[in-house]
Amino acid sequence: MALALDPAAQDLLFREARTANTFTDEPVTDEQVQAIYDLVKYGPTAFNQSPLRVTLVRSPEARARLVAHMAEGNRPKTSTAPLTAILSVDIDFHERLPELLPQAPHLKDAVFGEEAVRESAGSFNAALQAGYFIVGVRAAGLAAGPMTGFDADGVNKEFFGDGRQKALMVINIGRPGPDAFKPRNPRLAYQDAVVSV
Amino acid sequence: MALALDPAAQDLLFREARTANTFTDEPVTDEQVQAIYDLVKYGPTAFNQSPLRVTLVRSPEARARLVAHMAEGNRPKTSTAPLTAILSVDIDFHERLPELLPQAPHLKDAVFGEEAVRESAGSFNAALQAGYFIVGVRAAGLAAGPMTGFDADGVNKEFFGDGRQKALMVINIGRPGPDAFKPRNPRLAYQDAVVSV
Repeated sequence: MALALDPAAQDLLFREARTANTFTDEPVTDEQVQAIYDLVKYGPTAFNQSPLRVTLVRSPEARARLVAHMAEGNRPKTSTAPLTAILSVDIDFHERLPELLPQAPHLKDAVFGEEAVRESAGSFNAALQAGYFIVGVRAAGLAAGPMTGFDADGVNKEFFGDGRQKALMVINIGRPGPDAFKPRNPRLAYQDAVVSV
Repeated sequence: MALALDPAAQDLLFREARTANTFTDEPVTDEQVQAIYDLVKYGPTAFNQSPLRVTLVRSPEARARLVAHMAEGNRPKTSTAPLTAILSVDIDFHERLPELLPQAPHLKDAVFGEEAVRESAGSFNAALQAGYFIVGVRAAGLAAGPMTGFDADGVNKEFFGDGRQKALMVINIGRPGPDAFKPRNPRLAYQDAVVSV
């Protein structure tokens, strides 16, 4: 047993979890999303910057505005998933830093005064959090359908008009429907991804 | 019970898991790293591009070369952790795409022909995988100490001389030692991170 995590949890989160392309009609509630958030918010980010923001696309009108910016192949599932969320980075995450890092509030300006620094650090750390979020969706017993095939500039203008947030991923969430899964593709062998020096 | 994942696993991966700043001498074996990799390799990436590479810094000579490029505050723990790894993105991940995405081998050039596209997509997807990797370290019952405080250009020149790989994170791995943990900082409330539209 090289892993401490029990095999059922390994299956739930990684081994049997799969990207879903169809979903049932069963709703995904705000309570479920809050349970996911309240688990994965603990995942680490640099300086606890916590730059990920989640926009739940709940209204039919907002859904239509989002779907218009999705790549063609992503439109049907994004139209019909019980819940679709936009994961974005808040470029001005530093405004909350004095609260999030009370032992070093001066880092708000000393490290993150420049927007270019915030955009680079924020995008990386929000991507880490997006990884945690996908794991969290699975921890809720739901299937995730993460997508990067969309017009990010279009989504940003449509949903984040002030330029402060930038979309990183759109993710469908729900119970898998009929024929939800494509065959799993191979992964790189250990020795092709990991080396020792 | 809003989550399907059992509470002990929630604690192991997120609620009780903490970034460690000191470690015991207990070695981290290649078998443990392989078990971590063989779990988290299943985490999704766009087009299954799987761009994350892991460089285990095993030799004292390599460790010294790495420590020289770490931020001052990260040097003592990076010098003494039982295992330190460099997580990087392989900008030429597309070379493996025909193998990783056998149903659409043409995407290697059609989507990823340009280096700028690969660098952007690869860095985002490798960051997702870095998130999975941190979860995987914790799944092995080990503590992770992820760091972005290092001179990335220096590390890249030192370890990835051909320019093909770019360091995203350095991570210490091991069993937590004395006074390993700082007090946990607050996280954003649900309503500050998640909105509905």
